Amino acid sequence: MCELLGMSANVPTDICFSFSGLRARGGRTGPHKDGWGMAMYRDSSVWSIHDPRPSADSDMADVMSKTSLKCHIVISHIRQANVGNVCLPNTHPFSRLLWDTTWSYAHNGQLDTPQSLTLLTHYPLGTTDSERAFCWLIEQLLAKFGDQMPELEELTAFLGEQCDRLREKGVFNMMLSNGQYLFCYCTTKLHWITRRAPFKPATLSDEDVTIDFKEVTTDKDVVTVIATQPLTHDETWQQMQVGEMCVFDAGELVARIESRATAE
Amino acid sequence: MCELLGMSANVPTDICFSFSGLRARGGRTGPHKDGWGMAMYRDSSVWSIHDPRPSADSDMADVMSKTSLKCHIVISHIRQANVGNVCLPNTHPFSRLLWDTTWSYAHNGQLDTPQSLTLLTHYPLGTTDSERAFCWLIEQLLAKFGDQMPELEELTAFLGEQCDRLREKGVFNMMLSNGQYLFCYCTTKLHWITRRAPFKPATLSDEDVTIDFKEVTTDKDVVTVIATQPLTHDETWQQMQVGEMCVFDAGELVARIESRATAE
Repeated sequence: MCELLGMSANVPTDICFSFSGLRARGGRTGPHKDGWGMAMYRDSSVWSIHDPRPSADSDMADVMSKTSLKCHIVISHIRQANVGNVCLPNTHPFSRLLWDTTWSYAHNGQLDTPQSLTLLTHYPLGTTDSERAFCWLIEQLLAKFGDQMPELEELTAFLGEQCDRLREKGVFNMMLSNGQYLFCYCTTKLHWITRRAPFKPATLSDEDVTIDFKEVTTDKDVVTVIATQPLTHDETWQQMQVGEMCVFDAGELVARIESRATAE
Repeated sequence: MCELLGMSANVPTDICFSFSGLRARGGRTGPHKDGWGMAMYRDSSVWSIHDPRPSADSDMADVMSKTSLKCHIVISHIRQANVGNVCLPNTHPFSRLLWDTTWSYAHNGQLDTPQSLTLLTHYPLGTTDSERAFCWLIEQLLAKFGDQMPELEELTAFLGEQCDRLREKGVFNMMLSNGQYLFCYCTTKLHWITRRAPFKPATLSDEDVTIDFKEVTTDKDVVTVIATQPLTHDETWQQMQVGEMCVFDAGELVARIESRATAE
């Protein structure tokens, strides 16, 4: 399995604090030692880092946990390989062009018979079930909506249905973004927290690090962090339910599909 | 067009000095403002950064020019887009699995009718002629050598022939690496320099920065830097010729195909 970390903010915000906590789980406080990656969106630009080395030992991860690079959206992933060996092309997040925009995606979980996800136009570079599911998702979106991105409500509903189909094949926790929206879908574990004024201090669960968000924010900042497991032990995180999808825009929850676990 | 920067070293070495020079050409001293990327190999691991923002303005590039991350091989690229718009999937270097290893590649130049490069098994994610040529090269290597990497001499000779074929389509300066060898092929512009004891100071052409390599090396270090244009103005760089291929291993030139310009 793996762990996911996402952020959506209304002002460019760095991910150092949260990534420090996640990073420790990549070989030190957790077993996710098979690489890590990060896609960072600021305004219309996205850049990425992919590193198949354990995040707890990686000098590149060390830099990213200490250097303030401010973004609106982050998707990060630490990997514990199940399908696909440890190498650069199997390192999340994956990115593809869709509707003239770069979409980034990371997945936590494992899918049975991923080869049964038929692909016609979009193929994985690596050998993970995760990337195959991403290609499949893009093909479903293109088949449904053609070359025009639909309104958020319609997109969220359809994406939720496709994620439900993937969930039938196993565990499918995922994050997906086009630089404006951050879509988060839960099969087993995803937690989120929205921080806004009045900001308070918080302490990481995995590292002896405390931050007082009051000192690094303004009253207008809204920042949501989503993670497989809560990253702090002195804040209240919301747990997502089986089959739930949450969509964040500029730090705010803007769309939500309730759990459809009962439909199983 | 674009600019390339490569490094091959016998000890882990950082690229900060050279990258500072290259980076300036990405929107300040040069027009290559359409993104930059870097693949870094240390021992058997490779990690990568891709950033479609101008390297001269990118905070991520600023970090990479100032942070010592030591590698054996680096391939870096700053882009001035001609084929394919400015986005993450069009940002070099590109990576693919070949013979159980991650190969990384970057290209400077432009190819006529890239669609005439027939692909059967390996497809580009983006829309550049560069990535298409990389996929085509991999397919030629697999068709020729099957699932076993040949000896260096045979590989170099065949790769040189395939690069010659690409050169017939336009400008094809490229760097390619599997983490051990760094293959450099020249159509128009590539320069290289090998630094070894006794080390001397050097000054960048594009930035007011001087380094005394004596202070950051040992007597056993051998470091070769390859770049589109010489990066320093007080050292003697060797200019590669049309159709020449140089292969570096641990900083040393280990194979070379002389210019075959006369065969044109």
